[in-house]
Amino acid sequence: MTQLDERPAVAATDPATDPATDTATDPAGAWLAAFEDALAARDVDRAAGLFAATSFWRDLIAFTWNITTVEDPDGVAALLADTLDQVDPRGFHLTEPATTEDGVTTAWFAFETAVGRGRGLARLVEEDGPKAWTFLTTLHELKGHEEPRGTRRPMGAEHGATKERVTWAERRAAEDEALGVTAQPYVLVVGGGQGGIALGARLRQLGVPALVIDKHPRPGDQWRNRYKSLCLHDPVWYDHLPYLKFPDNWPVFAPKDKVGDWLEFYTRVMEVPYWSSTIATGASYDEATGRWSVQVEREGLPLVLEPTHLVMATGMSGKPNVPDLPGQDVFRGEQHHSSQHPGPDAYAGKRVVVIGSNNSAFDICGALWETGADVTMVQRSSTHIVKSDTLMDIGLGDLYSERALAAGVTTEKADLIFASLPYRIMHEFQIPLYDRMRERDQEFYDRLEAAGFDLDWGDDGSGLFLKYLRRGSGYYIDVGAAELVADGEVKLAKGQVDRLTEDAVVLADGSVLPADLVVYATGYGSMNGWAADLISQEVADKVGKVWGLGSDTTKDPGPWEGEQRNMWKPTQQENLWFHGGNLHQSRHYSLYLALQLKARHAGIPTPVRGLQEVHHLA
Amino acid sequence: MTQLDERPAVAATDPATDPATDTATDPAGAWLAAFEDALAARDVDRAAGLFAATSFWRDLIAFTWNITTVEDPDGVAALLADTLDQVDPRGFHLTEPATTEDGVTTAWFAFETAVGRGRGLARLVEEDGPKAWTFLTTLHELKGHEEPRGTRRPMGAEHGATKERVTWAERRAAEDEALGVTAQPYVLVVGGGQGGIALGARLRQLGVPALVIDKHPRPGDQWRNRYKSLCLHDPVWYDHLPYLKFPDNWPVFAPKDKVGDWLEFYTRVMEVPYWSSTIATGASYDEATGRWSVQVEREGLPLVLEPTHLVMATGMSGKPNVPDLPGQDVFRGEQHHSSQHPGPDAYAGKRVVVIGSNNSAFDICGALWETGADVTMVQRSSTHIVKSDTLMDIGLGDLYSERALAAGVTTEKADLIFASLPYRIMHEFQIPLYDRMRERDQEFYDRLEAAGFDLDWGDDGSGLFLKYLRRGSGYYIDVGAAELVADGEVKLAKGQVDRLTEDAVVLADGSVLPADLVVYATGYGSMNGWAADLISQEVADKVGKVWGLGSDTTKDPGPWEGEQRNMWKPTQQENLWFHGGNLHQSRHYSLYLALQLKARHAGIPTPVRGLQEVHHLA
Repeated sequence: MTQLDERPAVAATDPATDPATDTATDPAGAWLAAFEDALAARDVDRAAGLFAATSFWRDLIAFTWNITTVEDPDGVAALLADTLDQVDPRGFHLTEPATTEDGVTTAWFAFETAVGRGRGLARLVEEDGPKAWTFLTTLHELKGHEEPRGTRRPMGAEHGATKERVTWAERRAAEDEALGVTAQPYVLVVGGGQGGIALGARLRQLGVPALVIDKHPRPGDQWRNRYKSLCLHDPVWYDHLPYLKFPDNWPVFAPKDKVGDWLEFYTRVMEVPYWSSTIATGASYDEATGRWSVQVEREGLPLVLEPTHLVMATGMSGKPNVPDLPGQDVFRGEQHHSSQHPGPDAYAGKRVVVIGSNNSAFDICGALWETGADVTMVQRSSTHIVKSDTLMDIGLGDLYSERALAAGVTTEKADLIFASLPYRIMHEFQIPLYDRMRERDQEFYDRLEAAGFDLDWGDDGSGLFLKYLRRGSGYYIDVGAAELVADGEVKLAKGQVDRLTEDAVVLADGSVLPADLVVYATGYGSMNGWAADLISQEVADKVGKVWGLGSDTTKDPGPWEGEQRNMWKPTQQENLWFHGGNLHQSRHYSLYLALQLKARHAGIPTPVRGLQEVHHLA
Repeated sequence: MTQLDERPAVAATDPATDPATDTATDPAGAWLAAFEDALAARDVDRAAGLFAATSFWRDLIAFTWNITTVEDPDGVAALLADTLDQVDPRGFHLTEPATTEDGVTTAWFAFETAVGRGRGLARLVEEDGPKAWTFLTTLHELKGHEEPRGTRRPMGAEHGATKERVTWAERRAAEDEALGVTAQPYVLVVGGGQGGIALGARLRQLGVPALVIDKHPRPGDQWRNRYKSLCLHDPVWYDHLPYLKFPDNWPVFAPKDKVGDWLEFYTRVMEVPYWSSTIATGASYDEATGRWSVQVEREGLPLVLEPTHLVMATGMSGKPNVPDLPGQDVFRGEQHHSSQHPGPDAYAGKRVVVIGSNNSAFDICGALWETGADVTMVQRSSTHIVKSDTLMDIGLGDLYSERALAAGVTTEKADLIFASLPYRIMHEFQIPLYDRMRERDQEFYDRLEAAGFDLDWGDDGSGLFLKYLRRGSGYYIDVGAAELVADGEVKLAKGQVDRLTEDAVVLADGSVLPADLVVYATGYGSMNGWAADLISQEVADKVGKVWGLGSDTTKDPGPWEGEQRNMWKPTQQENLWFHGGNLHQSRHYSLYLALQLKARHAGIPTPVRGLQEVHHLA
């Protein structure tokens, strides 16, 4: 009371007062307090009543040990009924003043569970008092297993004098020598691109014994080995890895070799246990021991690893799709899938037919044209195209840009904002953005269509990012090659391929495209194909399709799943995980995958709510 | 007027109003405005009258194209009289609210000159109105030559399609091939440790053609090749390189091999032009052409480079001092300078006499003892010892720590605060800190003295940092080995060395110390010895002593110089520069050295005020 009495009367309405401590006058703070009250009372219905009639709670492993979204008060009630006693959530508080715009109050908050600490983002609307419209909860760290960073960073030097001193270099060398021989990794990550490396760095930080293996001679070769003009199609602010951001002189769209160098040194300085020149040739899971047996060849020498967990991080594109066409056996030229394309250098002056009209097709056509090849693109179905700078400005600029940084939207905040948009309604947010993009570049699109190119904007006009989430294909982020098609510099042919002859591709309409090289830029299958190859078709079928939302749009059949299938979360195959995606996803979701693995390694109970059912095999 | 009328009356006294725009009611803002007025009127005396009777203006190349400190209103007037018309300073404004504590108002400000933009820090005291007591001006960037960072970062990808495409990797390869052959570096940096690398990164950013050469096979070998238990003695917050900070999981005191890996990584990702396995064997300056001719051997192959500027970055420790002792020719064991010490591994069970009692001596004694050698330290004069954690906490904690970061003191701000403390009075700030350290660790010092060890705290009790600035020697940052001396685990002998015999070191008092190995941990000469070796004794003498302040204390003879001799600023030898120091200095002062070189490369006039006179040869 004394403190209250001494407090100046003005304080209660002074906007300079820290609102985090002033829930009484703040609708967001009041909402959080009411939510916590209901949770503490284990009153599931009261808590669910704080959600709007149409509402979305996305949980990243904080309540469900799963990546899952529930909808509406009923879904909230069901989630809480299943999890509340175990999770014991508490300590909800705003971490910065809530803001209100267009009737939506945005509130950043933190909370605790029985085993960890979480961060969240709520959007409240007025519906007989403030109600949660979107609600994101994420687990951020496990109690007692906080990462050694900042004030908890290691000392490094061991001060004092001891005759048993082991230096950092000696310890690292001993660890390298033992790994996979006398010490089994708890987690084996197959694939050491940005996904495997980011996860490896997080597991290292969390003290989970892990090993990342990759077929290439050096980390970063996944990028170095691709065609020479390749640059990242996403801008730098979207692409940071965990812990160590690109410096502020880093290019907006980094060239592939520079990305390769960064990945190589990131692996080194983050001390990621990484075996290069290593392939996994087979794997099987022993239900009795709960461990995998994985056959690998390290620099040609066979070895068996016995990890508890197996993470497939072999690339979100999955296995190459090569169409089965009559005449492929008689064609005398060269033919290969886009993923095997060595780059343009050998094809100056050659006639090249590229089958497909998405990212890879455009990139390859552009590079071949630059080298002086005679290039024809075969468009079999419509393509969504956005210009890179327009996408960067309109599509990402509010979250990932210098502008966003200047407005206080750090990469970490942007990731959570991004994660807080429910997949169910994401298209509603996206459609207006893509309408703006189309308007801005109308002249460009008119020219492409005049050249005969078939454009689309996704089944519902929601554009690139949803195409990416739903099917991972069907688009091109234009960095210049679209102009070549619009200009006729790269020739355009349309329709299905009927057959190959000795020296040409023949389309269904009978047109004959003479070719020295045929490139099948025909996409990839589901990532569960990697599991089929490495483990068995049985396990792949048990796990089902990987990627996609169940949006019931082209190449993403329903039913609605609510989340990306099988990504970064438990699958129907015990101790088998999938990790991948672009640099943004590799950065952000590796946190939740790493925490799930850490919890299991530490023996923390991880009851999974809502393990995904399998609706499609691949 | 309209704007003023519309402004609410409360604004003028509202503390929430941006104080940067409200100079009228803010003594710091008012002082800056008065200073700018006087400068604009070219009224040197009025400007000088704004400085306290005892005052210090330190300028880092913004006014003087030199690193220099002037004192008191007379010194200020003289500086301004020489520079005002050329520099045309203006636009002084606070960059954050000034703060007042104990009668001293601290004000961060920015300003412009005719050619660049500057940052500064003033401390004002009341002396018939606010007067500047300390005043720091630093040049931060050159107009028209701003670094490509943040919003100005390069695009990376060159969007569009062109048959003349040259990729990043191709351009880098072409550049590497041409450098030193068809394209001469404008700046040659001899020595590729942290100093050379940091400078190389800055020059790269500024677009100055440069080349860093180093004798080791890989960047970072400067650290890797040292004794195995070596860790940084300064904490991580003090040690960041420019542009790319250590991640927040980096150890407080990084092990040498980890530092080596970081430097190698940094060199690559910052694209520092760097030749490993390269030594410079001779150099001469042609006054007529204004260029150096430098003989180098790159991987054994001789080559002549013709840079305009030559930077010696071969290490702040200069050339090894090895005492000339009778009997060195008859001693049958091994003897070497500390800088040649290979580490302890070969000396288990051997009798080792280490002559000297500073950092290297303690580090080497500790590592030898850990390996099982029989070690005797010979103390010839008193040593200043502080415990590492005490130094980190009391000595650096306000500027370089998690605590400082949490208080908003970024590395960049800390560097400017550090730079703003005038060397003339720095001891006054330091003495109380070291008094606290002594008090905190009194029991430790008592035990050392009881063991016979001679301690000191600098001639004036100002401790380690001033010993470092004045003489670069005479201290040990204790990471554990001092306890070995206190305990008698490392034996202590005292006095001068009289001679060596076949198998022992004999001291002046006749004591005989049997030895299989003698390590001369006897320090280093002035860095100008590097210039004598590479160029000529004549040029070395022309340049004079490098390092030290002229403090008239032990090993730092007067007269008072006001700044560290010859470091990061023009010397008496045209186009010859010295760069070095710890990681902090390598980071911060490389900015000013790089801007000086950039201005010369860009043809911006750089009239140097107060080129240092030579008072001592070495």
